[in-house]
Amino acid sequence: MRGVSIIGVGTTPFGICEGMSLKELACKACLDALKDAGIDKREIQAFYVGNFISGILVGQETIAPLIANGIGLPKDVPATKVEGACCSGGIALRHGYLLVATGAADFVLVAGVEKMTSASTEKNTEGLASAFDQETEGRTGLTFPGFFALIARRHMHQYGTKPEHLALVSVKNHSNGVSNPRARFRNSVSLDEVMASRIIADPLRLYDCCPISDGAAAAVLCPSDIAASFHPRPVDILAVAQTTGYSATYEMEDPTTLIATVKAAKQAYEMANITPHDVDVAEIHDCFTIAEIVDSEDLGFFPKGRGGFAVEEGQTLLGGKIPINPSGGLISKGHPVGATGLGQIYELVLQLRGEHENQVKDAEIGLAHNLGGTGQLCTVTILRRRV
Amino acid sequence: MRGVSIIGVGTTPFGICEGMSLKELACKACLDALKDAGIDKREIQAFYVGNFISGILVGQETIAPLIANGIGLPKDVPATKVEGACCSGGIALRHGYLLVATGAADFVLVAGVEKMTSASTEKNTEGLASAFDQETEGRTGLTFPGFFALIARRHMHQYGTKPEHLALVSVKNHSNGVSNPRARFRNSVSLDEVMASRIIADPLRLYDCCPISDGAAAAVLCPSDIAASFHPRPVDILAVAQTTGYSATYEMEDPTTLIATVKAAKQAYEMANITPHDVDVAEIHDCFTIAEIVDSEDLGFFPKGRGGFAVEEGQTLLGGKIPINPSGGLISKGHPVGATGLGQIYELVLQLRGEHENQVKDAEIGLAHNLGGTGQLCTVTILRRRV
Repeated sequence: MRGVSIIGVGTTPFGICEGMSLKELACKACLDALKDAGIDKREIQAFYVGNFISGILVGQETIAPLIANGIGLPKDVPATKVEGACCSGGIALRHGYLLVATGAADFVLVAGVEKMTSASTEKNTEGLASAFDQETEGRTGLTFPGFFALIARRHMHQYGTKPEHLALVSVKNHSNGVSNPRARFRNSVSLDEVMASRIIADPLRLYDCCPISDGAAAAVLCPSDIAASFHPRPVDILAVAQTTGYSATYEMEDPTTLIATVKAAKQAYEMANITPHDVDVAEIHDCFTIAEIVDSEDLGFFPKGRGGFAVEEGQTLLGGKIPINPSGGLISKGHPVGATGLGQIYELVLQLRGEHENQVKDAEIGLAHNLGGTGQLCTVTILRRRV
Repeated sequence: MRGVSIIGVGTTPFGICEGMSLKELACKACLDALKDAGIDKREIQAFYVGNFISGILVGQETIAPLIANGIGLPKDVPATKVEGACCSGGIALRHGYLLVATGAADFVLVAGVEKMTSASTEKNTEGLASAFDQETEGRTGLTFPGFFALIARRHMHQYGTKPEHLALVSVKNHSNGVSNPRARFRNSVSLDEVMASRIIADPLRLYDCCPISDGAAAAVLCPSDIAASFHPRPVDILAVAQTTGYSATYEMEDPTTLIATVKAAKQAYEMANITPHDVDVAEIHDCFTIAEIVDSEDLGFFPKGRGGFAVEEGQTLLGGKIPINPSGGLISKGHPVGATGLGQIYELVLQLRGEHENQVKDAEIGLAHNLGGTGQLCTVTILRRRV
């Protein structure tokens, strides 16, 4: 396995992208990534796009060749859509990584995209719910706010996590989003405002939840040994791990831990030969505030049960021990489902190039954590700038 | 790149599988494939499932971890859905092939599945149409019978292909389906019956079209050098190529040729170091009778324009020069979209083991051709039995 690097990234803003179709969003991100890499599209040997529910939301499937044709990739190039709910973007990245690492290809373009705000709330609810097992919990009417509310209640019961801990995640991520031009929400919110916002699924309130969004993000990968000839500050991929979790809560022994994250983190740390304490900046899957707390524990940043307290102590702030979601995260930046995993990569590449609006000083190692559905899938990616 | 072999296959019947959900269909095919390979599920290191429109048809996305959990794969194993319209199954096989060929994994399980007959005709039409570019031809109301009817008309105009040529494809494939217990339709039809069946999209009649179906198929792959320790008659994968075609007819210079097929065939023949004339048996994508004729030319079995005449001359019959679709093909066996590509592999593996109900005598090299949408994607796979 040879080293793989990111030589170009592109993105749209995340939010309400009126007048831009799914194809246009994806093409913009891809063309920006190719331009950033300074590479001709005819050099690309494979294309992956992560997407969750374009079929249900905009009636458009088979988007991989559609986008490939939109950006003018050669017809010899395989174009493949990968789907793993909210983890689709991370899976697309991993497949590009695998092709380059194994020598099966030299230049791979990977993207993620979702177009959500043109569909009705009912369609979005129906679409998102398609990640549940329709033969078991899907039938009960469980939704994602409900699922993460169950986890929050249990986490509070077992570890003394307080509603204020959840709220402080929202305060931090909204605060980070203010300076991020790619974020859907660029307003700060106070602890009181979060705590007074309406209940969505007890104990989760409106500001505990990420918003549906439109968006796309993309990256160009190549072998590490030639990366510097394309971009002056290539970012090396130390590891990408992809794992599987339970399909429903009734299968979980302890719903305060998502096993797919634990296993992906273990694999990724071993591949990269680092520990959680070596990570300088992390973009993690805060679809709900409780998710960020659970993730931060499952990733080994804090002991199980201490994630909420760590937020209270300011350890995840921009200047803290381990800055989490300096982009604003899903909560503030938005969650165009299929795009999120590569949106995280975009943010980390800026961090490791030293170009982020919320720059973590001297950041050398970045971690992206992308979670699918009820923790059924997870990717953990570890990136490093060259020193 | 090391050699890759198929050591086990499994399938459900294709047709109306009442009382079996998408998950149950997929799990049955996977468990049968594992059993056929004589391998423990704990040995599997990666899982791919090809599926087109389970989100639209049965409201179930994120099926890869669902199926992985259903069959009890370990949680360390990445489970990924790949989508490329009707080519999804071929794409799943290719990804398993790549992992084993590059040494990234030793044992990979690949599957394809679709559950269609529980959804209404309207839902199926809507779902299938999601493969069209919704910003261009999708808006015109073009459907797949319409798309292939356009091709048929042009083929007739340019090459003198007759309605009887199309009808004879249907007669042959229905005749082959009679002996295939996995086929949806097991009745023979006469030339007169086909020619008298009602018009669906002129010049295509009812018997020129494949039926929607439920079904799943799966295969287990491993390195060739250890394959014989798992199955006495392993089948070697000489090549799998995946390419991209145009997204809409208005882009095509000549709609009687699908460029994705031409390019995939060229790549696959080069990889396998064979010519079309070395192929002993082929399972090709006859979603409509005209498709089989066009495919047979694009794959190099006959010169462009001669495919229809070759059918008339009996060259594609079981005892002909190049037996095409001895399984009955999509027309008779059925087309559970995401499963079709691996269904073809199942049929060819039986042929190359010498176990098929419509056995091609001494078949050594088999070719599978799986086409996605309007020719936007294609995989061509070449298999060989050991001699």
